[in-house]
Amino acid sequence: MATADAAMIAVDWGTSRLRAVLLDGVGVAIEERESDDGIGTLSGGHEAAFEALVTGWPPVPALMAGMVGSRQGWREAAYVPCPATLETLATALLRFTSERGRAMAIVPGLVVRDPARDGDVIRGEETQILGVLAGEPDFAGLCLLPGTHSKWVSVAQNRISDFQTYLSGEMFELLSRHSFLRHSVTASGRDLSASPDFALGIRRTAVEGLPFPAAIFSVRVRQLLDNVNREDNLAYLSGLIIGGEIAAAIAAGRLRGDFPIRIVGTPSLAKAYVSAFAIVQGMVTLVDGSAAVVAGLRQVARASGLLTTEQPQ
Amino acid sequence: MATADAAMIAVDWGTSRLRAVLLDGVGVAIEERESDDGIGTLSGGHEAAFEALVTGWPPVPALMAGMVGSRQGWREAAYVPCPATLETLATALLRFTSERGRAMAIVPGLVVRDPARDGDVIRGEETQILGVLAGEPDFAGLCLLPGTHSKWVSVAQNRISDFQTYLSGEMFELLSRHSFLRHSVTASGRDLSASPDFALGIRRTAVEGLPFPAAIFSVRVRQLLDNVNREDNLAYLSGLIIGGEIAAAIAAGRLRGDFPIRIVGTPSLAKAYVSAFAIVQGMVTLVDGSAAVVAGLRQVARASGLLTTEQPQ
Repeated sequence: MATADAAMIAVDWGTSRLRAVLLDGVGVAIEERESDDGIGTLSGGHEAAFEALVTGWPPVPALMAGMVGSRQGWREAAYVPCPATLETLATALLRFTSERGRAMAIVPGLVVRDPARDGDVIRGEETQILGVLAGEPDFAGLCLLPGTHSKWVSVAQNRISDFQTYLSGEMFELLSRHSFLRHSVTASGRDLSASPDFALGIRRTAVEGLPFPAAIFSVRVRQLLDNVNREDNLAYLSGLIIGGEIAAAIAAGRLRGDFPIRIVGTPSLAKAYVSAFAIVQGMVTLVDGSAAVVAGLRQVARASGLLTTEQPQ
Repeated sequence: MATADAAMIAVDWGTSRLRAVLLDGVGVAIEERESDDGIGTLSGGHEAAFEALVTGWPPVPALMAGMVGSRQGWREAAYVPCPATLETLATALLRFTSERGRAMAIVPGLVVRDPARDGDVIRGEETQILGVLAGEPDFAGLCLLPGTHSKWVSVAQNRISDFQTYLSGEMFELLSRHSFLRHSVTASGRDLSASPDFALGIRRTAVEGLPFPAAIFSVRVRQLLDNVNREDNLAYLSGLIIGGEIAAAIAAGRLRGDFPIRIVGTPSLAKAYVSAFAIVQGMVTLVDGSAAVVAGLRQVARASGLLTTEQPQ
């Protein structure tokens, strides 16, 4: 398809990556490009980084999601309170015109307030959820977006009602690479979640009720007293952390036996959670996270008039 | 008192410090010296480091406790299983003669096995507990030794029955200095545990039942949405971590309303736990950790014949 058909650019701009997809008037992808100019690596120069990536594409409007709307981003798009729908988000778009005259818009993040934990925020994930809902408008259940900061998002009746962030990915990095446990574990590139040691970790924190703070030192003990090898022990640590996350979510009522779960992310990241839910409970389906962002941006574009044509049948 | 009265040297040799106390025949301190030659900073050369510190002292036997008996120490003293008494430990001393002909002995660490968490180990703390028991032989309750790795030790009938390690001190370092939360907190040298934000953190994880993994992200949220200043937020993070430790210990039955608690450590470290127990529950008494080691070594020395004279009345 030629760029002459282009109607808009869907932009997924996170902390470490910038990705742009040129769409035609009905939302079909014409071309896709990607760069390392994540928000975390830039200090200003957002327009230049964006225009460098889309060089040669027509001057169509761009709709962006992710950290691009944070305080460190191109423009700060204030958080919108939950519950939130596609219409809420489309109405709250932060619109501006770039210095080169391009019409730009940023999908805002979401905020929940909760006296038990102050509250929570997401930015970027809301658009992925809209992408999930584009595929299954009647979905009611849990969308889990694993990562450095894992997000559990409750969805029903086409709206995002609540969510919670867990630091599981970051905790895994800290404990396996920066704590004294680094001497008790080692990475091997192997699929950790297939290991019986991963399953043991999940069972202890998510099934047997061992609180996460009471569980961590066992990583050292297993190596010291039982000569568990460091590869297996890394799988065990990963299991303890993900199991601790699941236990905390169960305690908060975020996971019930009859809740369907969509794991939205890259297959490699999602795999550990699929293994974990196989041990705990849950009807899990995987959703490709990159595709979900673009699907979500398409939905917002339609709801806000950036794409005027109806979705093709 | 003259070194002519010297009968033995009590040695507290941990990861970061080496401390030696010259004792007379009834266990009274004649002189005390200290150096930075902790086990963590040495690779071999233990005898030289020790003799350098005690230069000029008589060639009396030395009794040592702490990481000196670990695999990275001078000699490895195998862990002794719990329950353990003064007699158990005195019998299991690792005795050897140094190259210069000095009679040396190392108090072994302790191990517990527990199918729910593999088990646990302590090394050095067992001697501090013996020091606590020297002062109150009938103590039955909990000895809490805060630090990088916080140890909760259950004691009754003059024996150490069980214990558990929590990584609270290390977790505080990791989260406040190496995680993304470092941008949301700052150290000020202020007494964190006097802050209402510390109390809020304790209440959330230890009283209101917010699981630690579900609580951490609120540190970021408070700064982002409520403009909590970074000093107060560090106190809050500290409260969440110590509260999470206490909640895990309560879940394991380590803390009951009628248990007396001895906090064994430096006053500055112990202060946070005193504040925490004032919020949760517990009859807390402080015990000086450095004095406890020497008191414990004295007890072991008497039980093993290194000090032959009875304690003076």
